[in-house]
Amino acid sequence: MKAPLFHRLALIGMGLIGSSIARAARAQGAARSIIATARSAATRRRVAELGLADQVVETNAAAAEGADLVIVAIPVGACGAVAAEIAPHLTRGTIVSDVGSVKGAILRDMSPHIPAGVHFVPAHPVAGTEKSGPDAGFAELFVERWCILTPPAGTEAAAVERLAAFWHLLGANVETMSAEHHDLVLGITSHLPHLIAYTIVGTADELSQVTRSEVLQFSAGGFRDFTRIAASDPTMWRDVFLANKQAVLEMLGRFNEDLATLTRAIRRGDGETLFKQFSRTRAIRRAIVEIGQDSAAPDFGRSHPELPHLPLPRPYAAEE
Amino acid sequence: MKAPLFHRLALIGMGLIGSSIARAARAQGAARSIIATARSAATRRRVAELGLADQVVETNAAAAEGADLVIVAIPVGACGAVAAEIAPHLTRGTIVSDVGSVKGAILRDMSPHIPAGVHFVPAHPVAGTEKSGPDAGFAELFVERWCILTPPAGTEAAAVERLAAFWHLLGANVETMSAEHHDLVLGITSHLPHLIAYTIVGTADELSQVTRSEVLQFSAGGFRDFTRIAASDPTMWRDVFLANKQAVLEMLGRFNEDLATLTRAIRRGDGETLFKQFSRTRAIRRAIVEIGQDSAAPDFGRSHPELPHLPLPRPYAAEE
Repeated sequence: MKAPLFHRLALIGMGLIGSSIARAARAQGAARSIIATARSAATRRRVAELGLADQVVETNAAAAEGADLVIVAIPVGACGAVAAEIAPHLTRGTIVSDVGSVKGAILRDMSPHIPAGVHFVPAHPVAGTEKSGPDAGFAELFVERWCILTPPAGTEAAAVERLAAFWHLLGANVETMSAEHHDLVLGITSHLPHLIAYTIVGTADELSQVTRSEVLQFSAGGFRDFTRIAASDPTMWRDVFLANKQAVLEMLGRFNEDLATLTRAIRRGDGETLFKQFSRTRAIRRAIVEIGQDSAAPDFGRSHPELPHLPLPRPYAAEE
Repeated sequence: MKAPLFHRLALIGMGLIGSSIARAARAQGAARSIIATARSAATRRRVAELGLADQVVETNAAAAEGADLVIVAIPVGACGAVAAEIAPHLTRGTIVSDVGSVKGAILRDMSPHIPAGVHFVPAHPVAGTEKSGPDAGFAELFVERWCILTPPAGTEAAAVERLAAFWHLLGANVETMSAEHHDLVLGITSHLPHLIAYTIVGTADELSQVTRSEVLQFSAGGFRDFTRIAASDPTMWRDVFLANKQAVLEMLGRFNEDLATLTRAIRRGDGETLFKQFSRTRAIRRAIVEIGQDSAAPDFGRSHPELPHLPLPRPYAAEE
């Protein structure tokens, strides 16, 4: 039998991501034992009921104690305090990591607390759904998705490689980059899209000329895709925007310029500019499907119910 | 055997929508015969190869001749000219309809050409995918989606009911409203989301700090959802924005105000405003799923490949 990568994996936070890591790590035999904790007693109870970990403990300190891999899977804004809390309980050689969507702030907030001899390797698995909580997780969440590692300068290569091996085992591809570059890349590929989706869903809900039930009813014209993104966890996303302020504001500035250009084209009836812009974006979709980052199926592969077996309505249903 | 609703259905335009109507109408026995045409010879050839119609003809006039239902399924900007072209070939009692995403412009452009005694009932099936062309259509496209009818004042109720019966037969729910209200409702639920998706995909593609391959690679963080919408047919969407200028500019103005509010909250580090906004949008998603306008499955029900059966990487794969 093969030795697992880690002896004792501690998961602090058992939401969508933490519980998916627990499921995947167990399915792949990535750790000999999994210790989990969560802030709320209800979540800890549910994790125990679901049998997601070998042990569910009440405190972050108890979880970290004796672990050789600690993954903090909680909203970005809470990571600094947790690092301070677990620091005295970390063992030499342990790897501490996280799953936060912002990496500059994580480095700033967690690094100062990590004791000498403990390896700090921040990570961000770029995967998720709009659901939250321990019931929402599943073992396949990370398969063929990317996990970005942003080790601070001077991190031992062996620790980075060992964490990369862990994520590979969970099905992810692994890339390493600086925290600063990560925050720019995710600013455009994830944070700005979420901000815009949250905005437009709110805008629609506040219109006086169009009722909420009309917005819902006719959402298949595009709007419903935005509501999925805007249904993501509010605490997590509040923290993302507070923590990645600079990159998000920079991307917002560019987006606003581009939107102004298209707005001007609409106002002036400039069909050529619109057509040109709408044509080039198609190629980007094609490329995303080609590299396996989305389904080639139309409409994300949404299912369509069968045609109804309806009696023809009268008076057209007259027998011939 | 029941009599079909219509004797001769003429479809002018056989893209995603036209070819889906052909497939659904045939599957449901909604018309005794289906005559199709398309502007390009390649599309006509493909329609014939696919056997989507009983007859494929070369001109719009030939298609309309003798039809009791004519559906014009082409970009909004081309509908006026087609109405003028088919007008002399329409028979008394025939219903002329369309599938355009804008209804005010359709009324303005097509109505003047419709001869007395011919019923003009504009329609908009709120359904689609990001794919185009006769191969992209499928019979189930309209099932459980809404089709909006916007008959001009004075339209015979029987004609509206007969077209409503047709769309019911294709699986759609039918709603009637004014063209003006339609354009407002779709302005927020469909046109603005598309404009924003086209914009952000373009913004991402033009960044100097982030490469295109990074944008593609890490698109699973939200961006890929926008690329699907931004992969929609460029001609169709150019026409939508030119034709629904007023409502789109109005919605854009409100969206910009709301985006400015959130931008200010980010700049000031006002987490409370962000959290409040991000919490209310979740309820809207839930309502859309509840009324059957989207799947309850996380991530639109996108499929996830299985976990890989990987050999543990050395040196961690040492035999115990």
